[in-house]
Amino acid sequence: MRDVAVVGIGMDKWGELWEKDLRDLYVEAALLAIDDAGVDHVDSMYVGCMTSGLFNAQEHLGSIMADYLGMNPIPATRIESACASGGIAVRMGFMEVAGGFSDIVLAGGVEKMTDISGDGATFALATACDQEWEAYNGVTFPGLYAMMARAHMHKYGTTREQLAMVAVKNHANGYHNPNAQYRMKITVKDVINSVKVAEPLNILDCSPITDGAAAVILTTVENARKLGKPIVRIIGSGQATSTIALHSRSDLAGMDATRFAAEKAYKMAGKTPKDIDLAEVHDCFTIAELIVMEELGFVEKGKSGPAVEAGETAIGGRIPINTSGGLKSKGHPVGATGVAQVVALVEQFRCEKGECQVEGAKVGLAQNMGGSGGSCVVTILEAE
Amino acid sequence: MRDVAVVGIGMDKWGELWEKDLRDLYVEAALLAIDDAGVDHVDSMYVGCMTSGLFNAQEHLGSIMADYLGMNPIPATRIESACASGGIAVRMGFMEVAGGFSDIVLAGGVEKMTDISGDGATFALATACDQEWEAYNGVTFPGLYAMMARAHMHKYGTTREQLAMVAVKNHANGYHNPNAQYRMKITVKDVINSVKVAEPLNILDCSPITDGAAAVILTTVENARKLGKPIVRIIGSGQATSTIALHSRSDLAGMDATRFAAEKAYKMAGKTPKDIDLAEVHDCFTIAELIVMEELGFVEKGKSGPAVEAGETAIGGRIPINTSGGLKSKGHPVGATGVAQVVALVEQFRCEKGECQVEGAKVGLAQNMGGSGGSCVVTILEAE
Repeated sequence: MRDVAVVGIGMDKWGELWEKDLRDLYVEAALLAIDDAGVDHVDSMYVGCMTSGLFNAQEHLGSIMADYLGMNPIPATRIESACASGGIAVRMGFMEVAGGFSDIVLAGGVEKMTDISGDGATFALATACDQEWEAYNGVTFPGLYAMMARAHMHKYGTTREQLAMVAVKNHANGYHNPNAQYRMKITVKDVINSVKVAEPLNILDCSPITDGAAAVILTTVENARKLGKPIVRIIGSGQATSTIALHSRSDLAGMDATRFAAEKAYKMAGKTPKDIDLAEVHDCFTIAELIVMEELGFVEKGKSGPAVEAGETAIGGRIPINTSGGLKSKGHPVGATGVAQVVALVEQFRCEKGECQVEGAKVGLAQNMGGSGGSCVVTILEAE
Repeated sequence: MRDVAVVGIGMDKWGELWEKDLRDLYVEAALLAIDDAGVDHVDSMYVGCMTSGLFNAQEHLGSIMADYLGMNPIPATRIESACASGGIAVRMGFMEVAGGFSDIVLAGGVEKMTDISGDGATFALATACDQEWEAYNGVTFPGLYAMMARAHMHKYGTTREQLAMVAVKNHANGYHNPNAQYRMKITVKDVINSVKVAEPLNILDCSPITDGAAAVILTTVENARKLGKPIVRIIGSGQATSTIALHSRSDLAGMDATRFAAEKAYKMAGKTPKDIDLAEVHDCFTIAELIVMEELGFVEKGKSGPAVEAGETAIGGRIPINTSGGLKSKGHPVGATGVAQVVALVEQFRCEKGECQVEGAKVGLAQNMGGSGGSCVVTILEAE
């Protein structure tokens, strides 16, 4: 296997982008990444996207994105794993370069969520859970995570305030991110007093509906040196699944796909949780970040709430999490999220984060998951 | 890169399967393939599927299929490239094994097309073309292929009867395939007198709406020998894209993604078109098989019609094509089609084809494409 580096990153402002369509979003991020890498061609490309069929009545995204990027006839493949689509697109690109099939691969992700017709975003997003056994019985995504939150509170004594503190921290970070959708600081009181979505989760516990894209360029470390780019290696990649429906899980307060994916990534990287300097994790709801912290081994089971309360995951803390603002503040254009996590880590390694800089960070972890945790991909990066 | 073999194949009866849902179909084919391979586990899996969001209101297919197969926590990834989703799922599995990331990979494809709600199958399938520039202006998929047919007839003198002969041949083959959806022999007259769909294409020029799945198990050649399986190697794999919309192409009577994908596959395999003993190609419409024959190099440009008329692609001919019945007779559950092509070739190498056996065949080619040819994957197999 060849060593693989991230040599280009691309991301533009996320939000409700009424003047841009699906292909505009992907192409803009891809061109930014290509320009950043300074490459004159790409051998192959991936498009992470969850449900452009329901959002935009457009499938066949490999063909359309290669076309609008002017990249025909290179291979172009769309990857779907609900909210983990982007992270798995990066993993596929990593495998293609590491395996020697291509030298330069573009891995991007996109979702255009605001111009949905038909049954609306809640219906479209519910296709990530078990449609026949969960959604048809009336549960929504916030409802699924609300059940997990209740289980975690019951089992470990996690408090309502601790949930809110995840959102407060991520908004404090996202406030400094020019590409973030919601650049506003919030307080615990704001979260607790915000509109109820699914008890105990309020609107400020939930990531938003977002239009956006992100892209990275992957190549061999050898090529990266020739390009004169700072070397950021992918040293670990792990992917796993869990049962899609909550009712099949033995522990509602855990997410075993994340644990299994992390174990594989740590093993490949030769690292342990203690070696990780910072992480971008999938905070689609505040409870998700708490559970994920535990499954990644950053804290013991049940200790995530107190850790957030103690500031361990804030900038300057023991293990800063979501310095980009996370899904909560930055936005969550589903297929783009996993790619944007990698973009955020590379920005940190390049010391481009200003107020959110984690000084001396060399090893970062990105955790991206689909649905209510039915799929997960963990990527570990190391800067030279 | 490690040598990769197809050691297991699985496929059940295709058709209008009202009593089976999306997950039943995939799981059944996967279990058949696992049983056929005689393996006791799988390291990773792929699900090729085009538009389960629109057909079944279900995305996140990696998670759901791994769950219902009892395969958690292995990695499971859904691949979408319109009608080429299945073929690319096989290619991803091939790369994963060849690159040394996994030893045993399940690559399956599925589509459940008959129980669609909402805007119907014609709307769902049109998401494979350029929705904003083609479908919204009223063209349907048969309409796109009808334009290609007219262009081919105009440029090369291809006749209406020659188009019909493709369907007649494929039904003659599919008649012997117990898994085929439409096991009936038809005549040129039947085709020409059948219901008009989009001039010059009639209903018997078109592949049907189908429920079905197919699966293969891929492993190293070394493992295949340990399993005691006949060795069928993947010796070539090529993938390419073209413009998604017809209006951007320089030649409506050609399909350059197929040509580029084939060039790559031939190069990797060290073969030329003359070395191919038989092929499964993407005859979504009769005209498609003709154009593809030319792009694969089996005949010169413009000579496909006369070649079919002369029986060159029939069983016993120079290069038998679609001995399984092709999409036309066997059916076309979109995401499953590319996988089923590989299944059909392996059945030939194992001499399981009875009336449709191509004696002495050792090298086979599968060509699977998306939309109106905007993406294509070509796989070349060789039996020991």
